[in-house]
Amino acid sequence: MSISMYQASVPRLINSLGNLGRILDKAQAHVDAKKLDAAALIEDRLFPDMFSMRRQVQIACDTAKGVVARLVGVEIPVDEDTERTIEELKARISKTIAFIQGFAPAQIDGTEDKKIITKRGEKETHYTGMQFLLGHAMPNVYFHVTTTYNILRHNGVEIGKRDYLGQP
Amino acid sequence: MSISMYQASVPRLINSLGNLGRILDKAQAHVDAKKLDAAALIEDRLFPDMFSMRRQVQIACDTAKGVVARLVGVEIPVDEDTERTIEELKARISKTIAFIQGFAPAQIDGTEDKKIITKRGEKETHYTGMQFLLGHAMPNVYFHVTTTYNILRHNGVEIGKRDYLGQP
Repeated sequence: MSISMYQASVPRLINSLGNLGRILDKAQAHVDAKKLDAAALIEDRLFPDMFSMRRQVQIACDTAKGVVARLVGVEIPVDEDTERTIEELKARISKTIAFIQGFAPAQIDGTEDKKIITKRGEKETHYTGMQFLLGHAMPNVYFHVTTTYNILRHNGVEIGKRDYLGQP
Repeated sequence: MSISMYQASVPRLINSLGNLGRILDKAQAHVDAKKLDAAALIEDRLFPDMFSMRRQVQIACDTAKGVVARLVGVEIPVDEDTERTIEELKARISKTIAFIQGFAPAQIDGTEDKKIITKRGEKETHYTGMQFLLGHAMPNVYFHVTTTYNILRHNGVEIGKRDYLGQP
């Protein structure tokens, strides 16, 4: 008995991104009820050199699709980051969930020791599959979902930890 | 080949709490360099009904010790939440890491299907060990570490994602 690479990735990523989508529904409802400028909310950030709420959602999606594509061994789908509305961000999340859902456990299981190499400019970082999933991708997805949540909370959107955790 | 319950919990929790401790070191250095009121930073929050930075650190520690104690099947150690300085918060983190480090893989492995019941007032929630770890505890720890990070970033502490991720 143990945890498979699939169990530790796909259902967790779908859960977190699904919760993020439902959090954005509450953000939209807040914008509508208070007649706020949605663009101001989407472009808000917690400090001038941090990423905006929009980028937080995009990076959460990028990290999720990236880890699954790398583990499976397929090309990472490219998104143009053109989203400028909450609705478009929600569509980005749905598209990411659909991509992740497209893989079967057999395509991901057994990738614990798979070599994963990320490149940032000239710098290469080497991981094993498990290390990349548990030590890089999952904490990163949770980071960007939480930061989206924090930007929305800071702007008065009425959400709580239950919205972040969803149904585990 | 697969992931053990130990691999998915203890090293990940120690990594994240260790990163949190190093982030607090940078917060202390920031406070010292700018001659800030450390208490104001520790009590800061992103919205009036959110928890303060101090509580975020305490809850990250509580969640980490709680999941390990529940999986192993020992009493959850009680902490009095008396921390009022960055140094005291760092000591709380060290104490939590020491507790978690005290268990061997054999004490945690095989708890995937263990029944875990949490109580909040009258309400009981039932989990399996894997579901509690992957769907509740880990996202919660990352939530509170990220929110601590976000409060500090919002206050101008110069930290980056690398501080949050550490060495995976």
